[in-house]
Amino acid sequence: MSHFHLDFEPVGRRGQCLADQTLLDAARELGVALTSDCGGQGICGQCRLQVVEGQLSDLTWAEQDLLTAEELAAGYRLACTASPLSDCKLAVPPESLSAPMRIHVAGIDADVELAPAVRPYLVQLQPPTLHAPVADAANLLAQLRAVYGLDVQRCDLGVLRDLSPNLRAWNWRCQAIVRGDEVIAVRPLATDQSSAQDGHSYAVRVAHHAPLGLAVDLGSTSLAGYLVDLETGETLAAQGAMNPQISFGEDIISRVVYAHKHPDGAQQLRQAVLDALNQLAGSLCAEAGAGRNDILDAVIVGNTAMHHLLLGLPTRQLTSAPFTPTVDQSLDLYARSVGLDLAEAAALHILPNIAGFVGADHVAMLLATEPEWQGRTAIALDVGTNTEISLALPDGRLSSVSCASGPAFEGYHIKDGTRARPGAVERVRIDGDAVIIGTIGDAPAAGICGSGILDAVAQLRLADVLNEAGRMALDGHPRLRERNGDREFVLVEAPADGSGRGVSISQHDVREIQLAKASIQTGIELLLAEHGVALDAVERFIIAGAFGAYIDVPNAVAIGMFPDLPAERFRQVGNAAGAGAKLAVLSTAMRQHAQALRSRITYLELATHPRFARSFAYGCRLSKVER
Amino acid sequence: MSHFHLDFEPVGRRGQCLADQTLLDAARELGVALTSDCGGQGICGQCRLQVVEGQLSDLTWAEQDLLTAEELAAGYRLACTASPLSDCKLAVPPESLSAPMRIHVAGIDADVELAPAVRPYLVQLQPPTLHAPVADAANLLAQLRAVYGLDVQRCDLGVLRDLSPNLRAWNWRCQAIVRGDEVIAVRPLATDQSSAQDGHSYAVRVAHHAPLGLAVDLGSTSLAGYLVDLETGETLAAQGAMNPQISFGEDIISRVVYAHKHPDGAQQLRQAVLDALNQLAGSLCAEAGAGRNDILDAVIVGNTAMHHLLLGLPTRQLTSAPFTPTVDQSLDLYARSVGLDLAEAAALHILPNIAGFVGADHVAMLLATEPEWQGRTAIALDVGTNTEISLALPDGRLSSVSCASGPAFEGYHIKDGTRARPGAVERVRIDGDAVIIGTIGDAPAAGICGSGILDAVAQLRLADVLNEAGRMALDGHPRLRERNGDREFVLVEAPADGSGRGVSISQHDVREIQLAKASIQTGIELLLAEHGVALDAVERFIIAGAFGAYIDVPNAVAIGMFPDLPAERFRQVGNAAGAGAKLAVLSTAMRQHAQALRSRITYLELATHPRFARSFAYGCRLSKVER
Repeated sequence: MSHFHLDFEPVGRRGQCLADQTLLDAARELGVALTSDCGGQGICGQCRLQVVEGQLSDLTWAEQDLLTAEELAAGYRLACTASPLSDCKLAVPPESLSAPMRIHVAGIDADVELAPAVRPYLVQLQPPTLHAPVADAANLLAQLRAVYGLDVQRCDLGVLRDLSPNLRAWNWRCQAIVRGDEVIAVRPLATDQSSAQDGHSYAVRVAHHAPLGLAVDLGSTSLAGYLVDLETGETLAAQGAMNPQISFGEDIISRVVYAHKHPDGAQQLRQAVLDALNQLAGSLCAEAGAGRNDILDAVIVGNTAMHHLLLGLPTRQLTSAPFTPTVDQSLDLYARSVGLDLAEAAALHILPNIAGFVGADHVAMLLATEPEWQGRTAIALDVGTNTEISLALPDGRLSSVSCASGPAFEGYHIKDGTRARPGAVERVRIDGDAVIIGTIGDAPAAGICGSGILDAVAQLRLADVLNEAGRMALDGHPRLRERNGDREFVLVEAPADGSGRGVSISQHDVREIQLAKASIQTGIELLLAEHGVALDAVERFIIAGAFGAYIDVPNAVAIGMFPDLPAERFRQVGNAAGAGAKLAVLSTAMRQHAQALRSRITYLELATHPRFARSFAYGCRLSKVER
Repeated sequence: MSHFHLDFEPVGRRGQCLADQTLLDAARELGVALTSDCGGQGICGQCRLQVVEGQLSDLTWAEQDLLTAEELAAGYRLACTASPLSDCKLAVPPESLSAPMRIHVAGIDADVELAPAVRPYLVQLQPPTLHAPVADAANLLAQLRAVYGLDVQRCDLGVLRDLSPNLRAWNWRCQAIVRGDEVIAVRPLATDQSSAQDGHSYAVRVAHHAPLGLAVDLGSTSLAGYLVDLETGETLAAQGAMNPQISFGEDIISRVVYAHKHPDGAQQLRQAVLDALNQLAGSLCAEAGAGRNDILDAVIVGNTAMHHLLLGLPTRQLTSAPFTPTVDQSLDLYARSVGLDLAEAAALHILPNIAGFVGADHVAMLLATEPEWQGRTAIALDVGTNTEISLALPDGRLSSVSCASGPAFEGYHIKDGTRARPGAVERVRIDGDAVIIGTIGDAPAAGICGSGILDAVAQLRLADVLNEAGRMALDGHPRLRERNGDREFVLVEAPADGSGRGVSISQHDVREIQLAKASIQTGIELLLAEHGVALDAVERFIIAGAFGAYIDVPNAVAIGMFPDLPAERFRQVGNAAGAGAKLAVLSTAMRQHAQALRSRITYLELATHPRFARSFAYGCRLSKVER
């Protein structure tokens, strides 16, 4: 067998190839990564290259069909069907090169090499004959092994149930969706109308969306969902929704109590969140112009109680010592087994939990923020009704605590409190007698949300309306008044025409914020003390979560909720749990890494810590925590 | 660390052990297979042995609890909790030795080493604490890995859904059922009442049945079900049932046609057989005093159409050339995914198919009859509406054909035909003018079943009432008569009091038998010809199936249905497909072997064989096939 010398430019790869070898095979052996969605079957037309010097084998039927007259005239060929007849020099256009895809995840400098659990492959099968009556599934698996070198061993039962009529209807050509060693879906190709007219019909495009992935951060209050293209990594749609479980209890504990006290309580809670998830998936698909059946993989993260309620796991043991989760390892399930209405065989990956009150959402947050904390001494926290805090050490160790910070930052248990919605007071500045407020959307004031309350308390303290113990002065500011026996500070007067309510901060509201911030402050203090880390050694202070993104950090520092670190060490990263879920849906390597991260985390129980009570009492004071 | 010398008798194993090693560990290292259901946790009390010479560590609490005063006085100890303090000589009672279990399968000399896919393990967990708040699933998996060295990685979602409350209710002690790397069920132990009274409660027995396996041969006409104990290999119950799909069509083709012609036809057929399977499982459990939840594994075999209808696979392509199955490899499914009502996470293994008309039941038959055909030239067949025939060659090759032998042998398309039931004529002898018949159960004659029809045709031929072409004589025998223009031979006169019908064989009936036997005869002839095997080289002729067990072989030879081989080469093995299913439920090695057998089989299509028509026409003659 004779050999020829090939020279691929501009990539600069040169070497020998056999005379009967296709250029695609030769390119692969020489390390030239040509794109070929169909694995060299002459279907996709992606592996185009241009002959600069030398002779190739005759034009094939596929090339005449898939290349334009202009391309043919310019010497373009398909590498998968052309073989050299002499030494050749070949030009590879940039679009024919498959570079590893790197994508960027919102907010942080985390990027990920696309490695989804689910991948599509184009296949063209030989129909069975009386002399070779191969079973349809065996035919499909053999072709996937032969063309793509996949270790596929089986087809999902749902695939088998339609496979035989589908393959016959689709002229033995299809897109097979593969996860691990299993074909989980088989879909038709669109025939290219223009080429179908000349008598040969070549499928060059897929009739529907690329396989899509769904990533959801399932919070106690709200859901954040992302729809991603698993072939490009692109985020096609992102939406939020309320968690309807709120109508059963505003916080985790009250929902778990509901689940115990009502015969079908757990099932009601589960169905409520499933309905919301399915609706969110439908709504994301509508935004992206896709269908539910295009969603072939999903990752959901949430705190441990949300996680257990969603999966139908028991929750009673979560709420009494020692607060044990049923399961903390990551789970690989079928989405249908949980009740999600996606593609028939869609997968569902659940990231690992850490403890009864530190869940998969915290692992996802750590996953997404790793570029910020890796190799450093760092604090990463997600403020909410429950605040989870992790300390990262430069040697790779991680330690986590959970603080019951209460719902004050969500606007609950606050006299005029509200969730972050148009009209909510979100910024407060007190400058002498002047009180300047900002509302969401600049709408007329209608209540105050977490960041506004935090601002108000800090500004009142800085204006000496509150003393260090949080006690409100009796007078000394024109906005102070007493109402129903409780002192309050008026932020917005009620309109004189009676068209709305005013907004004020009561002494009771201040107490709620003191308890909430003391809880977080204590968590940080004990976590650092447990590992002998001085406050000043903290190189990064990462504030995750939707609420965290709106916190005015200097105000939070002023009341001691966050330590008094230099401003440049703080990072407000937004919904990093959602970003972590997205990383996991885009990359199986990220899933393995999340499980590895989980196994590096030690959990520190605060409730029984000998210094907890003292630290908490001290933490109620409204004053800076000095370095 | 000091070493001691141990001598285990009467097994005669001797060797060193470390001073702090338990006798159980030492025994294992020395190859003494002591029984220990609890893996050495001091729960099951099975690893008893008697000290003949030497000193052991002090009696443990477990030993005082699990051994009687007499046993303690006689020097009995538990190997799992006792360690040597000197060189020791130990007597192992026979009941403490776990020998590899070998069991015997009905009819044939096939036995199997018990290696079920599903195994039970006793575990005692440490409850989680605030300092070690390990998740319940992680706790269980870690203990199974530590005590039994299992590579368990996960719990089924159904297990997780009850795990936390169950472990707490059961005092952290349970039986875990493991399949592969997964815990598929967790069950409580019974506490031993007698030992519970003295303050310590040790679980020494399991409250319920050992894990059970269900094996079913799903035939077109009837179902044969077996319930086996997966710990002992014992068959606890065996029952038959009719296949209710018969009401949709008596043979495969008519059922597949029904499935196509009615909108929900396939689903109706599927539901009918599922109902029958679930009823059969319940009935087997009732016979064995067990519950459905005890059935943790199942194997079902059937012909390809039954297989596809059961699994909800399409069947249209089975009935037109090239008669392609959707899938022919073995399948591992959850029983629930198919609609079987067994234990929540029960597995279902489906043996591989060979072709559109040679199914998993044939593979099961080959598996069970392998000791008879292995290393020989042999024919193995299962006679039915469709007759599947395999030729085994001494070098291990296997070749299979399918013959449409029609339903005559099932009693269909025969004037007075009936299935094998009490009163059916099953034996016929014609001796001059005398006609001697035998009926099933010696009941008054009510129709004639397959073996009776075969006998009648052969005896009529031998008595020259039929000529070689199958034509019935006009006269010459007192039982001959003409009725409605068709000739017939009266086997049983209708009772004079009009209390019942008579039984006769018509010319038309003879034609049906000629077609049926010609089909089988042709299959054997072409299979041998294709491989150049002379008839006389066939060392074994294995007749499987319920009908096959009742065939009078000399009569079948007389009309050429079977070749004229020496009588000692024939084996009538009964329901070997059911036996094969039972082998597969008892042993994962047998499942792998079945898949390996499948891959050695080449399928020969008869319908398009150039010699088929000539061979078939010749095969219609009623005469011996000489060697």
